[in-house]
Amino acid sequence: MLVIGAGAMGILFAGYTWLAGHRHLTVLTRRLAQARAINDSGLHLKLPGEKLLHLKPQAIAAEEDDKLESQPDLSLVTVKQTQLIPVLSWIRRNINADKPVVFIMNGLGHHDYIREALPHHRVFYGVTQCGATRIGDTKAEVRGTGVTAVGSLAGGTVDSAPSFSRWREDIAPYLDVCWTNRIEQTMWKKAVINACINPLTALFQVPNGKLADFPALTQLMKQLYDELQPLIQAVWGKETPSILEEGRLWEEIIGVCHRTADNHSSTWQDIRHGRRTEIEALNGYFVKKAAQYHIDLPAHRFVRQAILALEEMKNDDER
Amino acid sequence: MLVIGAGAMGILFAGYTWLAGHRHLTVLTRRLAQARAINDSGLHLKLPGEKLLHLKPQAIAAEEDDKLESQPDLSLVTVKQTQLIPVLSWIRRNINADKPVVFIMNGLGHHDYIREALPHHRVFYGVTQCGATRIGDTKAEVRGTGVTAVGSLAGGTVDSAPSFSRWREDIAPYLDVCWTNRIEQTMWKKAVINACINPLTALFQVPNGKLADFPALTQLMKQLYDELQPLIQAVWGKETPSILEEGRLWEEIIGVCHRTADNHSSTWQDIRHGRRTEIEALNGYFVKKAAQYHIDLPAHRFVRQAILALEEMKNDDER
Repeated sequence: MLVIGAGAMGILFAGYTWLAGHRHLTVLTRRLAQARAINDSGLHLKLPGEKLLHLKPQAIAAEEDDKLESQPDLSLVTVKQTQLIPVLSWIRRNINADKPVVFIMNGLGHHDYIREALPHHRVFYGVTQCGATRIGDTKAEVRGTGVTAVGSLAGGTVDSAPSFSRWREDIAPYLDVCWTNRIEQTMWKKAVINACINPLTALFQVPNGKLADFPALTQLMKQLYDELQPLIQAVWGKETPSILEEGRLWEEIIGVCHRTADNHSSTWQDIRHGRRTEIEALNGYFVKKAAQYHIDLPAHRFVRQAILALEEMKNDDER
Repeated sequence: MLVIGAGAMGILFAGYTWLAGHRHLTVLTRRLAQARAINDSGLHLKLPGEKLLHLKPQAIAAEEDDKLESQPDLSLVTVKQTQLIPVLSWIRRNINADKPVVFIMNGLGHHDYIREALPHHRVFYGVTQCGATRIGDTKAEVRGTGVTAVGSLAGGTVDSAPSFSRWREDIAPYLDVCWTNRIEQTMWKKAVINACINPLTALFQVPNGKLADFPALTQLMKQLYDELQPLIQAVWGKETPSILEEGRLWEEIIGVCHRTADNHSSTWQDIRHGRRTEIEALNGYFVKKAAQYHIDLPAHRFVRQAILALEEMKNDDER
């Protein structure tokens, strides 16, 4: 098995896979230094309840094409959208089209690039409720677990990927990975939730919980949420109530703020560390998609631009 | 002469009035402690070019109604919109209706309250390009000078206020105060400029110049500016080109950012010091006005709410 991307989520999935007994595990990193660090000291994953897991996967950097010894029977991609393009060309060069690849990523829009870059590959998509924070090159900490839903956008079934089914069964005692026939709806719901929460946490420099604590911040989230309704209606038609969870999606957003009250959203973490954010895969995606339907999303345009401004300013600081 | 409000702008106008030779000058403060401090040590105004002016006006606090010895032949009101209501009732109790009162204030909306509270008073409105920062209770620093335009919304002329004309002539060598028959247009232009600049400076914690320096921030200003166009058209009809300075108002906004590059907007200063901002008189006013015309201003709604959120969070910090 291969995990592509050794960020917080990559280390989390590698860790639980190791815990499930898979010792033939390779991790692909972007930077050579990180691959070396992992090969030297392994990976550490702090599990919920203080337990520290130590795993020793093989690590290779993306530039070391020749080091992949054998075809992985299953690959999990856990990179950010901002890193997707080079990863797709790496997969095209290195992974046979019959070997399943599962993209567990935030936001929307990546499916368009993936479809185009890997038209013949067996591709699946995952949406996870798990959260993690990376600490240095070789360590991450689980910040909350939940269901990881996986499915196909091309209409394939789970039977087409026995290696995925085996992994899912093995990992089941440790992590809840389920197959869904409605992965696109799940991706949209998650993206709506993130598009309402993430930009505001970065703009106001607050952990998720504050968005539910301060009524004025909650109202900003509500403005973002309400503004998406015509787009969801336009894209999903009579499936709209299912995306909106029969009207309970707004409560779910508040619920996420409460459940992850102390967590710092990935967007805020990216801004703090001077990295590019995934804003184009969240609010940016919705703005572009809406334009196709001649729908304007001014508040989403505003927060997208605001996050780009924070990126620009942070960059300038560091020059 | 009476200056109501001893904030940065109050001290600025008191200072230039003193410079013009007016020694019979009273300053009205909200807090008793500030009135005492002024009576003890006078006021200091740092003029452009390092000169420090020392003036000794009489200071009285608003609660000391009985201390106003004689009717001021001219009153300048320089308080924030957030302080307006108690000031209006003070004026009603203490100033005869035939004595002119000039309200030099930011934003829009105050005219509605003033008209209602002082229906018989001789009221004028001023819009100033001067900037100042207050340092403690008795000192301010001029941060830029420019024209102060004064006019009447009720259609009165300058001849109806000889005391104003005399003050204007006396102050002319030091400060440019001009009479205009188009004060409402001037107030709108200034409010448009402030509504585009002020909330963003507070949200991104930057001095004015940065809004012109960072393209992503400039684009946020442009979104706010563009969104106002239908409202201006609805309110001003064929006068619209005059408000928009035949299309040059946007360049003027950029010009203000450049000219006041190092200045911290009043909104940002208010947020930093935990004070209520004038957001309701800027973006808040436009949002409410637009609703009367069934026009939605989502970006202005967003920044209004964002500033209220910053106020709320700052308040919470200090509790």
